[in-house]
Amino acid sequence: MIAFARTALRARASAAAAAPRPAALALRCKSTSVSHDPMTGEATGTKHLDASSLVVTRSNAPRTPPPSQSLVFGANFSDHMLSVPWNSATGWDAPKIHPYAPLQLDPSAVIFHYAPSLFEGMKAYKDVNGQTRLFRPDMNMKRMNTSAARIALPTFEGEQLITLIKKLVALDKGWIPSEPGHSLYIRPALIGTEAALGVHPTKDALLFVICSPVGPYYKTGFKPVALEADPNKVRAWPGGTGQYKLGGNYAPGILPQLEAAKRGYQQNLWLFGEEHLLTEVGTMNLFVALKKGDGVELVTPPLNGMILPGVTRDSILHIAHDHVEGKYPLDSLPKNLKVTEREISIHELIQAEKSGELIEMFGAGTAAVVSPVDRVGYMGKDIHIPAGDGIGPIAKAMLGRITDIQLGKVDHPWSVVVEDL
Amino acid sequence: MIAFARTALRARASAAAAAPRPAALALRCKSTSVSHDPMTGEATGTKHLDASSLVVTRSNAPRTPPPSQSLVFGANFSDHMLSVPWNSATGWDAPKIHPYAPLQLDPSAVIFHYAPSLFEGMKAYKDVNGQTRLFRPDMNMKRMNTSAARIALPTFEGEQLITLIKKLVALDKGWIPSEPGHSLYIRPALIGTEAALGVHPTKDALLFVICSPVGPYYKTGFKPVALEADPNKVRAWPGGTGQYKLGGNYAPGILPQLEAAKRGYQQNLWLFGEEHLLTEVGTMNLFVALKKGDGVELVTPPLNGMILPGVTRDSILHIAHDHVEGKYPLDSLPKNLKVTEREISIHELIQAEKSGELIEMFGAGTAAVVSPVDRVGYMGKDIHIPAGDGIGPIAKAMLGRITDIQLGKVDHPWSVVVEDL
Repeated sequence: MIAFARTALRARASAAAAAPRPAALALRCKSTSVSHDPMTGEATGTKHLDASSLVVTRSNAPRTPPPSQSLVFGANFSDHMLSVPWNSATGWDAPKIHPYAPLQLDPSAVIFHYAPSLFEGMKAYKDVNGQTRLFRPDMNMKRMNTSAARIALPTFEGEQLITLIKKLVALDKGWIPSEPGHSLYIRPALIGTEAALGVHPTKDALLFVICSPVGPYYKTGFKPVALEADPNKVRAWPGGTGQYKLGGNYAPGILPQLEAAKRGYQQNLWLFGEEHLLTEVGTMNLFVALKKGDGVELVTPPLNGMILPGVTRDSILHIAHDHVEGKYPLDSLPKNLKVTEREISIHELIQAEKSGELIEMFGAGTAAVVSPVDRVGYMGKDIHIPAGDGIGPIAKAMLGRITDIQLGKVDHPWSVVVEDL
Repeated sequence: MIAFARTALRARASAAAAAPRPAALALRCKSTSVSHDPMTGEATGTKHLDASSLVVTRSNAPRTPPPSQSLVFGANFSDHMLSVPWNSATGWDAPKIHPYAPLQLDPSAVIFHYAPSLFEGMKAYKDVNGQTRLFRPDMNMKRMNTSAARIALPTFEGEQLITLIKKLVALDKGWIPSEPGHSLYIRPALIGTEAALGVHPTKDALLFVICSPVGPYYKTGFKPVALEADPNKVRAWPGGTGQYKLGGNYAPGILPQLEAAKRGYQQNLWLFGEEHLLTEVGTMNLFVALKKGDGVELVTPPLNGMILPGVTRDSILHIAHDHVEGKYPLDSLPKNLKVTEREISIHELIQAEKSGELIEMFGAGTAAVVSPVDRVGYMGKDIHIPAGDGIGPIAKAMLGRITDIQLGKVDHPWSVVVEDL
């Protein structure tokens, strides 16, 4: 089911071998003991990512997870991690689960210079029966491979990594907090590690997965956030990398957030183009609900190359469509709902505020599931958005349905049970 | 003379402290033993980068540099490196020069996830008298601080780092190859290292400098390169980070280069906007020479926020202006020369080819100084550019003048002598 961009990888490798390149680059093609395809020059027989060759080394000093109420996002890590080195000549090494430990890399490793880096965010949940569950891990694998291909990092078979993540989570299942809203945040990452300063496809990479117990995003009920929409701050552009989950997309967003914070806004509402189209909010996707006649339109910007294809975004769209089509209607959603992926500008938002048609706005992402918005600052004025009792009815319905699926309260193919070891 | 963005740093710190933030972020502000400004919450008394507190640990196993003719760019490193850790509460640690060694970082370190990463490229040369020289290091320091401020990494006093780099280069001066066209490539880098997964200003960073002996970019005479100009591949955008030397700008350029290589082009000519304006070539700045009446116009795209402010670019502009203004006329440059920083589109390039006014085109950067271009592929057709005997007369004049300054053949304030230890 999950078969990914190996052809893209081959295309890259053959391009690298066949094309004329400057002297410094050309000299990097050393011969190795691996045989090469006589047509393409590509190394043949490189190993695929293979979960069956996993080697597990258990920690001999397991720690006690911190009390759940003390958890800070991404600050504590479980006893074990997964590491899989890759080399362009030999392919994927045998995966290793081993005690959580520092990475040791040459200071010339490309990760420190050119940001060959991508990541995913996933969560493992304790369900109502004490079982461990993942949520739509195939979506993360798909995006991880899409991201990898974009920056000439190696791709892999997603199902193999899902199998490995399940083993890691099963081994560290004592680190999954079971309180409501708590979970084990899973962070797969893939980085280029070749020790060489040229800007070229890395010959070495490291895939690793670490796990961090986390509490609910909103510890004391929902607090809607205020966004600053500054058209001079641009997150992504056509022909760029906004649709990939690359490390390089994130560091540039920190300063704009600090600047927004100086003016009392928690996050940036990223605009694009002369029409000042809405794209994303902070590091989340974006939904806007508008009153249309006797119904409601739920709008999210389309996947036009500048929008990260979020798993939560996709889940909300599916839930909304299932409601509209009567496959799984939800009482808590408007009866006359229209779901659209379309461009929406800040001017439409302002107009909808004026006409009383602006009902609700929220971010959507793995960390918070939904993040209600109650205010958008734009050109020195604030647009006010109803946010109910901290969260609007559509965001609340989506949160409820997604949480029910994540926790196995309802049977759904999105929720994947992790077998105990 | 070099006093940088400490105010920007302060602004960042105070914004971070003063602004309301989601629970997960807010909890990151732990109290420390350092006192804080009661108005801004900023840690006070944090240490500046201080070269006088340098601690040197010499290698007890110095290696023999490889033979100069075997050198591959960025593949060999000298015996020592410089490291300076930074922490948001305490400031810059005492700088250390120590044996070249791997970095050890937690797998949750932000550098592996969000690309808080910037670098510089500099060179040390053996001059005609055997002295060691740097070229315009103040320009690199200025840009390094500008890059740092853009991604919420710490800034520093550039003169302090120049002093430290001089000490490192003096210690490893045996690694500077003395053959013509050879040099010691110096790579300063600054990375965020905090072990925490939130997307926020890093509380820990590492500034390090490594050195790599390199040979001439063109080992056997000049070989002009062919460029592919694909308007669908976009390097930078207004409101983005194209003018900063961030790691995140580089990984996304690798795949476009591989794709260009498949079609026989060595580098990308990065276009921008509906007019398909020329911006940069590969990882270099760009110059075009056009015949205008009985004179020549030397054009380079302006520093409009999408162009890296290259040291070589700036040097070429200065040399050209000095020639035009009679301050330092060069026989090898056209008598009637006009120098402009202005937008130039691919259509103007095509028109100039047709009218016979397209004289020369070259990239400009630290690695090659100048890189002649003889062909640009655009929309399935090639634009042909005269490239003389592998290099055009203007590129050749610039290379000659810059090399003379770098090697101390002429006295010039751009060339900075490194005192022996």
